[in-house]
Amino acid sequence: MLLPETALDLIFRSARTHTHWLHRPVDDETLRALYDLLKWGPTSANCSPARIVFVRSREAKERLRPALSAGNLDKTMAAPVTAIIGHDLRFHDQLPRLFPHADARSWFAGKDELIRTTAFRNGTLQGAYLIVAARSLGLDCGPMSGFDNARVDAEFFPGGTVKSNFLCNLGYGDPAKLHPRSPRLAFDEACRVV
Amino acid sequence: MLLPETALDLIFRSARTHTHWLHRPVDDETLRALYDLLKWGPTSANCSPARIVFVRSREAKERLRPALSAGNLDKTMAAPVTAIIGHDLRFHDQLPRLFPHADARSWFAGKDELIRTTAFRNGTLQGAYLIVAARSLGLDCGPMSGFDNARVDAEFFPGGTVKSNFLCNLGYGDPAKLHPRSPRLAFDEACRVV
Repeated sequence: MLLPETALDLIFRSARTHTHWLHRPVDDETLRALYDLLKWGPTSANCSPARIVFVRSREAKERLRPALSAGNLDKTMAAPVTAIIGHDLRFHDQLPRLFPHADARSWFAGKDELIRTTAFRNGTLQGAYLIVAARSLGLDCGPMSGFDNARVDAEFFPGGTVKSNFLCNLGYGDPAKLHPRSPRLAFDEACRVV
Repeated sequence: MLLPETALDLIFRSARTHTHWLHRPVDDETLRALYDLLKWGPTSANCSPARIVFVRSREAKERLRPALSAGNLDKTMAAPVTAIIGHDLRFHDQLPRLFPHADARSWFAGKDELIRTTAFRNGTLQGAYLIVAARSLGLDCGPMSGFDNARVDAEFFPGGTVKSNFLCNLGYGDPAKLHPRSPRLAFDEACRVV
């Protein structure tokens, strides 16, 4: 089976990063449906390190404000929801349950560099699954990296074992406010077949 | 618009990591269609750092063999194609073209740690887009991290500026060889709404 053309347009070809948002909220049911899709995306040894905070209330947005860079401020404060995609550096504690057919916890315990790399890589994969899953549900996305990670961690992940990776505004974008699309590299610039 | 249920199944809910492959090749046209979808996925400042080698010929597979871990060997040698997802640490040289409305190259030039983090994060996002795009086209995926990155880099990215990230076998999997699916974290274990 292949996806129909309209579906390929929705999640890839016509999907755009949005910075202006319609006044239409994103409810709990939609956020749960979003997670119930993205959770199925593959991660190494099913390690599933992503930890996500959906910042939606006015109070929580104000806690986020001081960590935002100038260029990301207005669009993020205006977005119905801002997802903080983080990754748990203790993800391996869940492996006896998530990967029960091997002693996968022992592959990571005490190996700080491997833990950091694995959490960052696989948490980022899950962040991409979030973007595609959101679009699949009719949401628009505005992902960004420009913020003070340490400040976000102190405010939203105070336990110290979860590190913020990137932010993604979620809502229903205003297509009238989009700029023309930027180009992409051609196949032969980015790929080789050997 | 929302994706139909069958499409959500194809790219998320029913999609599985495969390790056994049908004898059905993956042609150039399919690999180009794959890139022509994944390239549209968002990256920071449209930096598009992913560089992908599709290892398909017997000769190229033999060059990959010594870098594979024991647990990844048989399935990877048997896969119709193995994609090496790497990222270019000189990605910012393309920014005058990819992000023409600002001097984005200057945000990165000379900042090695920012370059490494940005390339790794955004190249990984593109790797996830590859997985979803492959499934959208009816391909099955087998992504993995267990290999000797330095050896792959020396063999397939000898210029020294592109670093391998992860591998992804591509082809048409044998559903009869799948194991039962591993569990995922519940919403309240991985997410919070604030």
